[in-house]
Amino acid sequence: MPEALENNEIWIDANKLRDFVAAVFTRVDVPPEDAWVVADNLVAADLRGVHSHGVARLERYVKGVRDGLIKARTECTVVAETAAAVTLDAHDGLGQVAAKRAMELAIAKAKVNGTCFVTVRNSNHYGIAAYYALMALEHDMIGWSMTNSAPLVVPTFGRDIAVGTNPLAVAAPTLTERPFVLDMATSTVPRGKVEVYQRKEKTMPAGWASDETGKSTGDAARVIDNLVKRRGGGLLPLGGEGELYGGHKGYGLSLLIDVLSGVLAGGAWGTHLYEPGPDGKAKPANVCHLLGAMDLRGFGDPTAFKQRLDTYLRELKGAPKAEGHQRIYVAGEKEWECLDDYSKRGVPVHPKTVGTMRFIAGDLGVAYNLD
Amino acid sequence: MPEALENNEIWIDANKLRDFVAAVFTRVDVPPEDAWVVADNLVAADLRGVHSHGVARLERYVKGVRDGLIKARTECTVVAETAAAVTLDAHDGLGQVAAKRAMELAIAKAKVNGTCFVTVRNSNHYGIAAYYALMALEHDMIGWSMTNSAPLVVPTFGRDIAVGTNPLAVAAPTLTERPFVLDMATSTVPRGKVEVYQRKEKTMPAGWASDETGKSTGDAARVIDNLVKRRGGGLLPLGGEGELYGGHKGYGLSLLIDVLSGVLAGGAWGTHLYEPGPDGKAKPANVCHLLGAMDLRGFGDPTAFKQRLDTYLRELKGAPKAEGHQRIYVAGEKEWECLDDYSKRGVPVHPKTVGTMRFIAGDLGVAYNLD
Repeated sequence: MPEALENNEIWIDANKLRDFVAAVFTRVDVPPEDAWVVADNLVAADLRGVHSHGVARLERYVKGVRDGLIKARTECTVVAETAAAVTLDAHDGLGQVAAKRAMELAIAKAKVNGTCFVTVRNSNHYGIAAYYALMALEHDMIGWSMTNSAPLVVPTFGRDIAVGTNPLAVAAPTLTERPFVLDMATSTVPRGKVEVYQRKEKTMPAGWASDETGKSTGDAARVIDNLVKRRGGGLLPLGGEGELYGGHKGYGLSLLIDVLSGVLAGGAWGTHLYEPGPDGKAKPANVCHLLGAMDLRGFGDPTAFKQRLDTYLRELKGAPKAEGHQRIYVAGEKEWECLDDYSKRGVPVHPKTVGTMRFIAGDLGVAYNLD
Repeated sequence: MPEALENNEIWIDANKLRDFVAAVFTRVDVPPEDAWVVADNLVAADLRGVHSHGVARLERYVKGVRDGLIKARTECTVVAETAAAVTLDAHDGLGQVAAKRAMELAIAKAKVNGTCFVTVRNSNHYGIAAYYALMALEHDMIGWSMTNSAPLVVPTFGRDIAVGTNPLAVAAPTLTERPFVLDMATSTVPRGKVEVYQRKEKTMPAGWASDETGKSTGDAARVIDNLVKRRGGGLLPLGGEGELYGGHKGYGLSLLIDVLSGVLAGGAWGTHLYEPGPDGKAKPANVCHLLGAMDLRGFGDPTAFKQRLDTYLRELKGAPKAEGHQRIYVAGEKEWECLDDYSKRGVPVHPKTVGTMRFIAGDLGVAYNLD
């Protein structure tokens, strides 16, 4: 869901921003076509209002490449392959590049066989999950994308973080409505939202995060401090603490996504992502993804599917509203509206991120032309 | 998750119960092998503690068959078929029989191609979702099962019910641990839980259900009364009211499952399930399902996968517990323990359901031998 603005953002033209980010990655030895993919993915996140996955991540990615934890040149090799199932090894390459190639392969094979799922191991953070699911739309396919991620979420009845916010994205094509795009993390809120409450010294609603005893807490500063120092507690799964509100379902979904990525691909899972080596030094993250494509032609007539989906989405949007509300949204709708808006007037970038981009530009000798 | 007992249940041997239920269905012209499938599915629900989907449903199913809304003889025809994608039409047959055949087809085709998904239209209530996902395990496959269902859930910011509790089940095989089995409805709680609070005149926690204005309410009697009279309000999606606790994610998941079943198969979706005809009379429900199988061999070595999953599940169960808690569960664990217990000492059946079974037995001339 698009993030709320803090109103001190600097607005930057999306195309210029993409060119700049691509130039940065090219400078650290990423091949130009791959640099463009990463840049496009980061700017796509900002355009959809998901700034936590936008250019705010540039510094971390560049550092990863410069430290050698992320390989600048992404080579994907095939570990196993059948008509509708593949496992790829990304050999610590860029998550975006690996996931895009995996999705291209899923699409190509779904075109022949109707459906294909591709799992990827030894990859890295792949940005917004929806990016790859969206690739399926122009092929009249339903696109699937999920990934495991750094442990941040406490399992139901647990004290310490043990699973990631592991997102799931599925996109389905329409004819006249904007496509259906579900892109959701399996925690109640992302870490970034807790950080906003910390910065604003506001009390969080119950069910977002837990403290070092495993109880839900409204104290954002304590949660972040505990996370940094690994003292216990962290984000709560969708459904919150315990089982009363369905927290075990959010935890179950997070675990499911890890089973379909980390466990299926044979990479890292749970607490093993971003785990340091025995010498205490950082190792490659070993993130894993699952990408999939379902060709509508395999199940029937694509146009008829799209008409049905249009009708359904219109029915939901036109349904009676709760008191005090004017709109019912369908998955992806807010992001599409954000994209329309930000494509015209630029994307909002936090001043701190602008400062970091300036520093990176100076450091690497890349022209900074975004003022 | 296994339901809490009310301690007035009558304990019945699972094998005898299955035979009785199969005899009932055979009596209303269901072929013996299909009658056994429905009976096995209902008793499997009771064995797993999910009594809302167990023999308590016998009356509704038998009535559906006798009224001609559910065809006693289930004929599935192929609407579309490729190597890894199929659409079946169940022609108003029994949901259990149609879903089982669809899953058998998915498994057979996944054996050749690595993955296969089969969508089904013009079907009926298929019982517990996990039943079909579990079928994949003995083939060293990951099993998928989802279905749309009668509208009971209010979309985020909506007033009226517009989507079902649409469950998702995924099962994955293990070597020494019990298999991973996620089986979850996409509402915070099922309707049955609201009915328990109504019966006990207890106030429900916030976020379970909404009233006729669209606001969360603790008044269970009001929610049930509103549902019966279609006056607005209903169950809330996983994450509760509005977006603050992620209710839009639960709503998005419910919609996703309907897109992958109702919309993909070309059957009914949303408010159109169980919709009466223009004459006001009941029509076939037109429930739709999606069943899928992913062959572990398509992605690598099945034994290595199972060892990894064992390790992961053990890590989670062994992780530090929240204060006041002794166990962290993994998806399916509670149901496996319930199954072990109820397989030995019988399944608990509500006295009202026992009364109904006696009546059905007398009415149809089937011997009632469960005392």
